[in-house]
Amino acid sequence: MHFCSSECPLGSGSMETYNFAAGPAAFPKTVLAEAAKGLIDWRGSGMSVMEMPFTGPEFNLIMAEAQATLRRLLDLPENFRILFLQGGAYGQFAFIPMNLLRGMGKADYAVTGHWSRRAAAEARKYGSVNIVADSSVNGFAVLSETADWELDPEAAYCHITTNETANGVQFHRLPDTGAVPLVADMTSDFMTAPLDMTRFGAVYASAQKNLGPAGLTIVIVREDLVGTALAGTPAVFDFEGLIANNSKINTPPTWAIYVAGLMFNWLEDEGGLAEMARRNRKKADLVYGIIDANEIYSCPVPPGSRSTVNPVFNLPNRDLDEAFVAAAAARGLLNLRGHQSYAGIRVSLYNAVTDRAVQALLDVMAEFAAADGKGLPIS
Amino acid sequence: MHFCSSECPLGSGSMETYNFAAGPAAFPKTVLAEAAKGLIDWRGSGMSVMEMPFTGPEFNLIMAEAQATLRRLLDLPENFRILFLQGGAYGQFAFIPMNLLRGMGKADYAVTGHWSRRAAAEARKYGSVNIVADSSVNGFAVLSETADWELDPEAAYCHITTNETANGVQFHRLPDTGAVPLVADMTSDFMTAPLDMTRFGAVYASAQKNLGPAGLTIVIVREDLVGTALAGTPAVFDFEGLIANNSKINTPPTWAIYVAGLMFNWLEDEGGLAEMARRNRKKADLVYGIIDANEIYSCPVPPGSRSTVNPVFNLPNRDLDEAFVAAAAARGLLNLRGHQSYAGIRVSLYNAVTDRAVQALLDVMAEFAAADGKGLPIS
Repeated sequence: MHFCSSECPLGSGSMETYNFAAGPAAFPKTVLAEAAKGLIDWRGSGMSVMEMPFTGPEFNLIMAEAQATLRRLLDLPENFRILFLQGGAYGQFAFIPMNLLRGMGKADYAVTGHWSRRAAAEARKYGSVNIVADSSVNGFAVLSETADWELDPEAAYCHITTNETANGVQFHRLPDTGAVPLVADMTSDFMTAPLDMTRFGAVYASAQKNLGPAGLTIVIVREDLVGTALAGTPAVFDFEGLIANNSKINTPPTWAIYVAGLMFNWLEDEGGLAEMARRNRKKADLVYGIIDANEIYSCPVPPGSRSTVNPVFNLPNRDLDEAFVAAAAARGLLNLRGHQSYAGIRVSLYNAVTDRAVQALLDVMAEFAAADGKGLPIS
Repeated sequence: MHFCSSECPLGSGSMETYNFAAGPAAFPKTVLAEAAKGLIDWRGSGMSVMEMPFTGPEFNLIMAEAQATLRRLLDLPENFRILFLQGGAYGQFAFIPMNLLRGMGKADYAVTGHWSRRAAAEARKYGSVNIVADSSVNGFAVLSETADWELDPEAAYCHITTNETANGVQFHRLPDTGAVPLVADMTSDFMTAPLDMTRFGAVYASAQKNLGPAGLTIVIVREDLVGTALAGTPAVFDFEGLIANNSKINTPPTWAIYVAGLMFNWLEDEGGLAEMARRNRKKADLVYGIIDANEIYSCPVPPGSRSTVNPVFNLPNRDLDEAFVAAAAARGLLNLRGHQSYAGIRVSLYNAVTDRAVQALLDVMAEFAAADGKGLPIS
């Protein structure tokens, strides 16, 4: 507990809330409290982290620690480089082909949901895009079997989106792309489980799901793939220059990198990625369990493609969707409405979502089902 | 004063420090304290600002208020649009020509220092660049007379950097570019004085000098100039799409926008841009006064080109530069070393740098000059 004056930003006792937002998403409370210290005066430096020169010893230390912790967490091989960028994963939809087409002019893309479809569309600005799989035929509710993909052995890379936040589908087995580098948008499931980076040429992720605040994008790239960017690649997004300058071609998003470093420390303290995978699997099993056990809920995604991080489910109609969202909100369960392009409910179970939050959700789901969707008494 | 438990991030009583960093730069203490509240629980929402969905009512309000306050402060005409982006001003070195060459294929650039030279170099990737002025002949210590510029009446735009942070030179009179839109990188002097936006086609600025944390770039553009971006423009940096989606093509840098909004509120509370101009002029006059009054200091920039926001000065040799930086640091005056590409001292006097900080600097400068650079007692 924390007892302070009314000015104190740590506050005292508002209603307990649980945030199931798809991103920007919930932080561990301990990370927020630590971040607040660095916001005012970082380790007695007399400076907020937001006030530090990005070339000074204080920020250099913050960034080096963040990179080192990330490297340990991922057990990242030496030949992969970590970049801290801006512009979001959607920015990388352009900068990945700009940097990684390597004069080959074409790439394979698997379209398995809302975001991979956008990635493929953006890549067409820079080269030829071969769609190796398209699960829009089933409303993006099932991933196609990767064994059926028609891969181009001369593609510069093969792009997948490992987890589709809007559709609630996730790869649980990676495609075998042979010598063609696998490139993955892992925005929503990066660091939610151990990752064998030797299977990839590059992965990228916006921070605002599991890693930190919006405004930071992490790119991890195998260094032999870098160095042949298209002529029109903006300097601040050219991977070769970024590697040479340790992501400091211009001022990096210093605050976001600081908070990401705190998140990496938290991940390590909590037991690392294997422990995250165990917890996330357990949380997801509980949520899918109650969906499958109650007729009022239905999950459009069959078990083999279900996401551990963004389970989605539907109620019989939109009015009941809204009634459920309202009933949950009245109990402090926030941000459960599905992606704006799709109906239904979406439960984001990122690393920072606690068992206690999940139990609160299960309670509401059980009550709502028992009342047959008739609504719940408010509070 | 603030008296709390030892856990409280507002802290109590470390040594008073004054931050003269060129950017990321100092914040007003009151803004940091307010930001810390939003970091933990924004207005009792149960969410940190970093945890809010960017499409939800809470963040929509934060962003709308920030835009409205900025518009009031600038007295911005209706036909200008405000964009909140990522990637820094250096990113805009590419995205400005991508968006504003408008099929005309060429633009004028004035090279007046470190940053405008880079802007011109980056623009060459996207079109033909006509250098209308180049003050590198005098080591960037003097701006050329804008009356002498050879402007191309068929240029898509004419680009200037209103203040050169590394070189300490600033435009105090804008060039007359006729019907050719004037486009300005105002990263270091945006919001330090009133601005007649009708003189411009577009201005842009990274936030980390006067406006907020690193990771936010503000672009203000006349809407009739938008809509003809080059085919290879990344979607998240296409001004037309950004205007149509109110800067939310993908997740914007929500925390940085929140803090910028607090800075805009602070600017308004403090009296707005006219008051900032008065204060900044006064601070700069004091600093230039003591430079000119003491032989040990010399400013390479003649009065007509001197920056109000980043005065630079030299000591007789590099050892004395370092002795001065050390003597100042020992008194809590931080980040006075000049840009890494140039020798000497740089004093950044952004809006948040207080009279008290300037007085502390004047005291050190006076003492150091009186001791003839022999060093000052450490304490």
